[in-house]
Amino acid sequence: MTIEEALTTAESRTWIERGGTPAAPGNGRLRPLGLREVTLRDGFWRQRQQTNRAKSFAHIEYWLEKAGWLNNFSAPPEERSGREFSDTEVYKFLEAMAWEYGRTRDPAVEQRYRRIVARVVAAQQPDGYLNTNFGRPGQQPRYTDLEWGHELYSFGHFIQAGVAAARTFGDDELVAAAVRAADHVCDVFGPGGIASVCGHAEIEPALAELYRVTGNRRYLDQAKLFVNRRGHKTLADIEFGRAYFQDDVPIREATSLRGHAVRAVYLAAGAVDVAVETGDGELLGAVARQWRHAVARRTYLTGGIGSRHQDEAFGEDFFLPPDRAYSETCASVGSVMLAWRLLLAQGDPRYADLIERILFNVIATSPADDGTRFFYANTLHQRVLGTEPSADTQVPRAASTLRASWFEVSCCPTNLARTFASLAAYVATTDDDGVQIHQYTPSSITTTLPDGREIGLEIDTEYPADGRITIRVVTSPDTPWTLSLRVPDWAAGATLDGLAITRGLVQSRRRFTAGDTLVLQLPVRPRLVAADDRIDSVRGQVALVRGPVVYCLESVDVPRGVDFGSLRLDPHTEPVDRDGAVVVGCRSATPADHDWPYQPVAAAPGTGPLLKIPLRPYHRWARRGPSTMRVWMPLTSER
Amino acid sequence: MTIEEALTTAESRTWIERGGTPAAPGNGRLRPLGLREVTLRDGFWRQRQQTNRAKSFAHIEYWLEKAGWLNNFSAPPEERSGREFSDTEVYKFLEAMAWEYGRTRDPAVEQRYRRIVARVVAAQQPDGYLNTNFGRPGQQPRYTDLEWGHELYSFGHFIQAGVAAARTFGDDELVAAAVRAADHVCDVFGPGGIASVCGHAEIEPALAELYRVTGNRRYLDQAKLFVNRRGHKTLADIEFGRAYFQDDVPIREATSLRGHAVRAVYLAAGAVDVAVETGDGELLGAVARQWRHAVARRTYLTGGIGSRHQDEAFGEDFFLPPDRAYSETCASVGSVMLAWRLLLAQGDPRYADLIERILFNVIATSPADDGTRFFYANTLHQRVLGTEPSADTQVPRAASTLRASWFEVSCCPTNLARTFASLAAYVATTDDDGVQIHQYTPSSITTTLPDGREIGLEIDTEYPADGRITIRVVTSPDTPWTLSLRVPDWAAGATLDGLAITRGLVQSRRRFTAGDTLVLQLPVRPRLVAADDRIDSVRGQVALVRGPVVYCLESVDVPRGVDFGSLRLDPHTEPVDRDGAVVVGCRSATPADHDWPYQPVAAAPGTGPLLKIPLRPYHRWARRGPSTMRVWMPLTSER
Repeated sequence: MTIEEALTTAESRTWIERGGTPAAPGNGRLRPLGLREVTLRDGFWRQRQQTNRAKSFAHIEYWLEKAGWLNNFSAPPEERSGREFSDTEVYKFLEAMAWEYGRTRDPAVEQRYRRIVARVVAAQQPDGYLNTNFGRPGQQPRYTDLEWGHELYSFGHFIQAGVAAARTFGDDELVAAAVRAADHVCDVFGPGGIASVCGHAEIEPALAELYRVTGNRRYLDQAKLFVNRRGHKTLADIEFGRAYFQDDVPIREATSLRGHAVRAVYLAAGAVDVAVETGDGELLGAVARQWRHAVARRTYLTGGIGSRHQDEAFGEDFFLPPDRAYSETCASVGSVMLAWRLLLAQGDPRYADLIERILFNVIATSPADDGTRFFYANTLHQRVLGTEPSADTQVPRAASTLRASWFEVSCCPTNLARTFASLAAYVATTDDDGVQIHQYTPSSITTTLPDGREIGLEIDTEYPADGRITIRVVTSPDTPWTLSLRVPDWAAGATLDGLAITRGLVQSRRRFTAGDTLVLQLPVRPRLVAADDRIDSVRGQVALVRGPVVYCLESVDVPRGVDFGSLRLDPHTEPVDRDGAVVVGCRSATPADHDWPYQPVAAAPGTGPLLKIPLRPYHRWARRGPSTMRVWMPLTSER
Repeated sequence: MTIEEALTTAESRTWIERGGTPAAPGNGRLRPLGLREVTLRDGFWRQRQQTNRAKSFAHIEYWLEKAGWLNNFSAPPEERSGREFSDTEVYKFLEAMAWEYGRTRDPAVEQRYRRIVARVVAAQQPDGYLNTNFGRPGQQPRYTDLEWGHELYSFGHFIQAGVAAARTFGDDELVAAAVRAADHVCDVFGPGGIASVCGHAEIEPALAELYRVTGNRRYLDQAKLFVNRRGHKTLADIEFGRAYFQDDVPIREATSLRGHAVRAVYLAAGAVDVAVETGDGELLGAVARQWRHAVARRTYLTGGIGSRHQDEAFGEDFFLPPDRAYSETCASVGSVMLAWRLLLAQGDPRYADLIERILFNVIATSPADDGTRFFYANTLHQRVLGTEPSADTQVPRAASTLRASWFEVSCCPTNLARTFASLAAYVATTDDDGVQIHQYTPSSITTTLPDGREIGLEIDTEYPADGRITIRVVTSPDTPWTLSLRVPDWAAGATLDGLAITRGLVQSRRRFTAGDTLVLQLPVRPRLVAADDRIDSVRGQVALVRGPVVYCLESVDVPRGVDFGSLRLDPHTEPVDRDGAVVVGCRSATPADHDWPYQPVAAAPGTGPLLKIPLRPYHRWARRGPSTMRVWMPLTSER
């Protein structure tokens, strides 16, 4: 089957009609919806999706030009600028535009997309190779630095952009170029070729996804080969150890996600793709176990991952200091990709629980309200006032403590762009018997079950501000089907149409009629949580969470004259909702200054009068100028 | 005055007779003793000093050859190996040998020293330039990378080796070469020359010390120029910010030590040297204030500094997580250099308090008992079993969690070597009126006051195991003089000859007679300490300290079947000394495993029966095979 043929099969045409979707497995418990099957309406996410297209797209293109990374595709090698992986920011931007086009059919988006595709594809070599950093005169030869060169990683993002194009534009020159690139990769790294892997996973899910688009099994086989090869110490033992690129232990034998967090979740996502397409239950089970381990022991309250700055890596179990938490935005993007794939494969609602937590506390936190500045790292405790870099400054990786316009390693802005453009995909799924709603946001869902039955739903809610979620049936067949709703793990006391329901999934199977309405009530009242005792760095502290939203204390909310660092939360005062904030009772407890900060154990410092202080959603922090901030708060009743 | 003349002045000859000393200011409250004026006798430090010479010297030379760093001085540029600063390991080794020779006059040490000096000096260019990494065909030109090239840093260590040679061997070819190097540096970076500084401070104290040796004011002026230039943003704004190399704020305006910890303390040491020699009270006051700030807010319980792996830097105030504490060995070496200079300048015993804490808890911790393996970083909480690198492996910087033979950046072994060789210098000082004893270890002190009065003392003690310190007068003039003894800040309840004394300094001025004996009793019984409330990462935890020695819990001391991570210290049980350990009462409190580690605040997990578990000195950790370890322990009475 040629690519032209593959893209005109019924399934391909269906995806294009449906607006495409970021992962389309051939097997699994749940089936994803297309980006045109779910329309976000005004609410928390719609606004961010609009800003993404209206502001972030232009911002990204401006910076890709300004930094020279777009120009690299036509510039002579000696004029190349940017890090070794800067091509991928262009590819992720193309992917974002493809999803945005799939969703909106906006001709302005198509125009911008085609203009950039033409420049990129022109740089592809006749043998399919494409990378502006290697292989040309004066450059390092191809594939001479698999540890750090990011060549296959770059191909991965290129192919993933091609997959998005195939599912949204259909056959176009990016798709053809992605196929040529994939063939090249298979030629060079296939059986009998270079028997190694890339220091940064990404080619794995990309090839598996290209298999899904083209039906060409060669790509799946190559993805599987890459997944199986890794972990056998084929890469060099670098300063951070081989765990950094997951080459320390084969993925089937590993017990947790580990090493560089982005690499870890990209690899795991690819492994799920391979497992699902090849029916490899052992591999799927291994990844699911590692995910469970990492969620239980290596994940921040915000859903963020990666506690170490130096190697952007997961720490050991329970090493989750809020101070200088790294929690890279891109690691959360990848974590959504992984949890989504596991959800489609296994249907367990806890995968969607994590997606929700990440969306509200990392993905929503990173971009500025105007969509032109971004957090690269998402700390949970900011001790000093940051300085906002000027708008025209490209800052190093995670150096800025405030949102920055662009980075030397600028992976986060484009990763957010593709996430926001494809956000609707994560709202709901179908199976043979009905629809499952995973994320609650104002939206319209119109889909067709595999047997042809059409279903239309409207979700109305002010969630997460309010816990009432109304689901109205707009279209329904006259046969019974099942509506499944996720009841988040934190939602003890939830009700459906007034009846108490347990956490997990609540399923209504019946003959629905247009106009039927279900009311899900999730108890989003503020609650205090404490961490597992083994997370030593937050011992004796609590955090306030409301629904899926983590709150924080910001210095700009502390009355003048009160020392931010001295505040403790008084657990005997009930937290109260007020104007989007939650007001808690705090008392000041200023420790004595000593020349030496370690003194004989003494009574706790006396606490001052009760102060009512608003905590606000963590995703709103640092939007009112520089501030100091903390998510975890000590208690007055502790020493 | 020529260098030959300078080295034959009475003062120079006196230093050579006295065995040299690592910092010899021309002004200040206290005057250092020479390495032959204080002889360590069998005890805690003597043994380590012997191992340094008997084992570490050969180990270091072996590795300098094996890694090619010694060979670099004769090899053609294309064969050069090692990082850009690898020359300095040779220089620090030369410095160590000079002090060792000063102390012992050991001809074997002299032989080894001369052999290496000849190889090094042969590489010096006619204009005084010396660096195997720059300026030759195929290499980067001189001084084109002041941020990262470490050229002046390398000159600093070279000159410092020359200073050590001048104070121990007297005039020799290393001294002459150091003078040529210093002249070159002044020519190139003096008024009208390159108006910048080096990314890594070190040239500053070296030039000031060379001024002290040679009397040539040009070197002092250049040191002053470097100190004053820094902080005016002359270096580039790197990923870690200019604070990394203290180029963010002029040293007179800074409020704390900050940035890369080794750079910070080397710079501050140089600034003290400049301040003392130029009578610059403002500069001295500024450094002393920054030191006080850093000790009160940026120093680990062990005395170690630098909490961040990524940039080996001080964190913000109270950012002192024990987990993954960096606490680089070299930063502690530099911190001793700084505190020692401040002590000589101002006489305040708290400087010696910090030196003691660092010596017992970092300097004593780093080397293996056989002197051939070293900790680069000195964490306070080890969560997983490390793997010991094989003896012939050069490991990256701080990658190893166990002591390693050699590092790609191998600054620590040679820094320890020069510290151990010159350790006797830190025991005592003199002023016009007598002798001050700062560190308590079995030793003999024989010195002459400026007015010619001879004093001899013997110190007998098993400190820090035991708190009884006997000081016997062996030689005394028949006029009154003052014996000052440091009473550590932790030593509440200390007595001198049975009388209660306060912490700080206790001074006895009288007409001593040979045979007079004073008995200082320091209460070294175990005590629990808690951290300042703002060090959030150890909230609700305590540490056990005994005298100056920090203790820790190691997994190898936990009974089989008891989970190391579950142990809490029961504060109602009295810690008891037993066989070099301190036995404390602990109880197991195992938290429930959850899929998500953040749960509603609940009652504390139940605790198990009382277990008697030995804590051992932190400096003894990881000497019985791999172990997990923690200094800070949660309490049973906390949630």
